[in-house]
Amino acid sequence: MELNFTKMEGLGNDFVMLDDRNGAIVQTVPYPVLAKKLCSRRFGVGGDGIIIIIDSETADVGFKIFNPDGSEPEMCGNGMRCFAKLVFEQGIVTKQRFTVETLAGTIIPEILLSDTRQVEAICVDMGEPILEPDRIPFKCNRQRAVNEQIQVKGETVSITAVSMGNPHAVIFVDDVKKIDLENLGRAIETHELFPAKTNVEFVTVLNDQELVMRVWERGAGETLACGTGASAVLVAASLNGLTRETALVHLAGGDLSIHWDQQSNHLFKTGPATHVFTGRIKI
Amino acid sequence: MELNFTKMEGLGNDFVMLDDRNGAIVQTVPYPVLAKKLCSRRFGVGGDGIIIIIDSETADVGFKIFNPDGSEPEMCGNGMRCFAKLVFEQGIVTKQRFTVETLAGTIIPEILLSDTRQVEAICVDMGEPILEPDRIPFKCNRQRAVNEQIQVKGETVSITAVSMGNPHAVIFVDDVKKIDLENLGRAIETHELFPAKTNVEFVTVLNDQELVMRVWERGAGETLACGTGASAVLVAASLNGLTRETALVHLAGGDLSIHWDQQSNHLFKTGPATHVFTGRIKI
Repeated sequence: MELNFTKMEGLGNDFVMLDDRNGAIVQTVPYPVLAKKLCSRRFGVGGDGIIIIIDSETADVGFKIFNPDGSEPEMCGNGMRCFAKLVFEQGIVTKQRFTVETLAGTIIPEILLSDTRQVEAICVDMGEPILEPDRIPFKCNRQRAVNEQIQVKGETVSITAVSMGNPHAVIFVDDVKKIDLENLGRAIETHELFPAKTNVEFVTVLNDQELVMRVWERGAGETLACGTGASAVLVAASLNGLTRETALVHLAGGDLSIHWDQQSNHLFKTGPATHVFTGRIKI
Repeated sequence: MELNFTKMEGLGNDFVMLDDRNGAIVQTVPYPVLAKKLCSRRFGVGGDGIIIIIDSETADVGFKIFNPDGSEPEMCGNGMRCFAKLVFEQGIVTKQRFTVETLAGTIIPEILLSDTRQVEAICVDMGEPILEPDRIPFKCNRQRAVNEQIQVKGETVSITAVSMGNPHAVIFVDDVKKIDLENLGRAIETHELFPAKTNVEFVTVLNDQELVMRVWERGAGETLACGTGASAVLVAASLNGLTRETALVHLAGGDLSIHWDQQSNHLFKTGPATHVFTGRIKI
């Protein structure tokens, strides 16, 4: 069977995008097998995952994602922006704001167009932040873990703990470039006060609308970008009076604009997705 | 400009193949710039290099190769097999044995076909081995450096030195898997008896027609495959009476068949090349 695919990337996370709305692909080869084959960088197309457009009975369109090892994550923020851009550009959806069925529930991306009606960015509703320590989870007696002093490797570190569905420890520093992230990230990730471990973000505030962050992802180490991390960082910065409700967050892989809508209490993350090339492969 | 390309690999070395016989690509973007862009694994197609089919006045077809950093090597054995398969399959050449102009001179690949006329393998003439120590270069008073005892890290190691245009030190051992290649490879590469440094091959003889090798490439460290190394290994094994004139060499990236033709004194290397996918990218 010959497969047509589109290669896309968002903040340096790259995906092989497939359209299987008629189910022809999955009838030939199971998606986990396909993911292993296609994600191989030398013997396949290469990518951090495959993303499949499928039909949905509950939403405008369905989204599936598989890792290079064949496992199936619920969702992926960078992948969702690529997906939203592709289904809009190919006319699979025609509304700029539409619903997508995923294993993590219904996601509602919104396409932002330029004056010439090109897709400029994609905005995704990230839901509400969770600030109650028990629900993050973070061991703390106060109502919110804002600017909490914890002991890390014999030093006192001031953290703000936020969950965006997954736990984050946000630390403000003068210069993120100077942080020994390997050492500190791992120590905070596995700190006893975070019973489910935590993602760790070090942040430098450039001004009240611009932040620079580096992220240490739970179970993965330092990565180029983390959408829930950028959202947690904006919440932490706002709670600490360091930014307004919208800020541009500079990550190693690129920029995300984060908005905390006070009325709905939802976070909105806006970022790019790039069409890299199209291809055809025999499987 | 939109570019059509073919992605191919040979023994795990992968290349973005382009046809620029009419010069349209190079008039738009210089090859080194294109190589940097296309070889990026997340933001481009991804590859160990780009290979360009060009016209030649001195041969049937011309070959150019550029590294991911934009530099231009003279030749590449794995890349040449991919190139030969592609130009034959696309009808750019029609003979099974044809001439290719490269920066390393004229190369003469030969296409081996299956009963159904599919390209099964590609054989490339590797030229004559150089055995005179001065020309390898290897410091030694004898006419040939076969089974020479040298001191490496306080131990005596028996090496056979061969040049295939570049120097190789071949060492026969009971089990290549048990060798500390990082440590020994580096020590032999930079040994004072090799004034231009050397590639290093550890080899286990399975029988007189089959060898297993691991290669430490000069300036690069351990790699999946090295065509001049496999050729040097067959020469060394033959000089030591361990194999006949043809042997299958198992490398980490796959197998190569090496033949030392006694009449012409030339080495012939036969191996695979695989078409992975075709694509189209905007540059």
